Amino acid sequence: MKLSVVAFPSKKLQDLANTYRKRYDSHYTKITPYITLKEPFDVEESQIEEISNKIKSIADQYGPLEIHASKVSSFFPATNVIYFKIELTEQLQKIHEDLYNKINIGKPKHVFIPHITIARDLTETEHDDIFPQLRMIGINEKEEIDRIHLIYQLEDGSWTTYETYKLTGES
Amino acid sequence: MKLSVVAFPSKKLQDLANTYRKRYDSHYTKITPYITLKEPFDVEESQIEEISNKIKSIADQYGPLEIHASKVSSFFPATNVIYFKIELTEQLQKIHEDLYNKINIGKPKHVFIPHITIARDLTETEHDDIFPQLRMIGINEKEEIDRIHLIYQLEDGSWTTYETYKLTGES
Repeated sequence: MKLSVVAFPSKKLQDLANTYRKRYDSHYTKITPYITLKEPFDVEESQIEEISNKIKSIADQYGPLEIHASKVSSFFPATNVIYFKIELTEQLQKIHEDLYNKINIGKPKHVFIPHITIARDLTETEHDDIFPQLRMIGINEKEEIDRIHLIYQLEDGSWTTYETYKLTGES
Repeated sequence: MKLSVVAFPSKKLQDLANTYRKRYDSHYTKITPYITLKEPFDVEESQIEEISNKIKSIADQYGPLEIHASKVSSFFPATNVIYFKIELTEQLQKIHEDLYNKINIGKPKHVFIPHITIARDLTETEHDDIFPQLRMIGINEKEEIDRIHLIYQLEDGSWTTYETYKLTGES
């Protein structure tokens, strides 16, 4: 069973991302717009509750995430993914590290660059055509996200939420 | 903001429903397979936390839902929706009533027939062609669902989970 940990931004920011995703993102129908905190990793279905408990113990230590979607960037030439860049904060870096260290399944494949994907699986020509346009339109949205989600993937590639964890900063 | 309360069946049952939904259900890409406990209702975005607290107080009173997907049925001629029928239990009826009574927004439009939709927006010819096939294949799956979800709809019709409530039966 494939799991991942994500934060969904506000409805407003999801709606905005979807105006691009519906045209440019091949995963548009598989999940609503999200920020990945731990990349997909494989576990036995029987392990999910234990992992969920670990995430809860991490989430309990954090207050709401302060998010600033500051510009449109691209991972080109590594991949042709275009995204809303989320400014990396100490808080985001720490929760990302905690999720990797305490769950201890899978290692980060890349340096952590928090983002909301708005385009992927473009040809190089499409990328070079679209990216300058989207970069010029840009993005500048600040918000608080007060919860994170453990999600699992179905056989068709779509994702269902298993559990929600509030970031109350209470413990 | 449009909200709804649903139960997602197991990954296994979701995968099975999706083998039909990808061909026959126009909402296939908007949400993974689900059982509606309270039909979509409109609220101000500011009300969501209050509603979430009410759902939590309801969920706290219930143990896991005992689900039996017992056959393939159709709402024809009311609508051309084909579904996995979930046997109505006292528990399902009560949680459905509690959600309507305590949230007190929107009234049930129909008698409560718990189900997982696998086909919709078919023409009458398509319905009459497909339904006998699916009914013959049938379904017979029993499982426990130990949580329910409050979900909200984005402008494109897709749904994101706001919160998860465990059915522990502890209070």
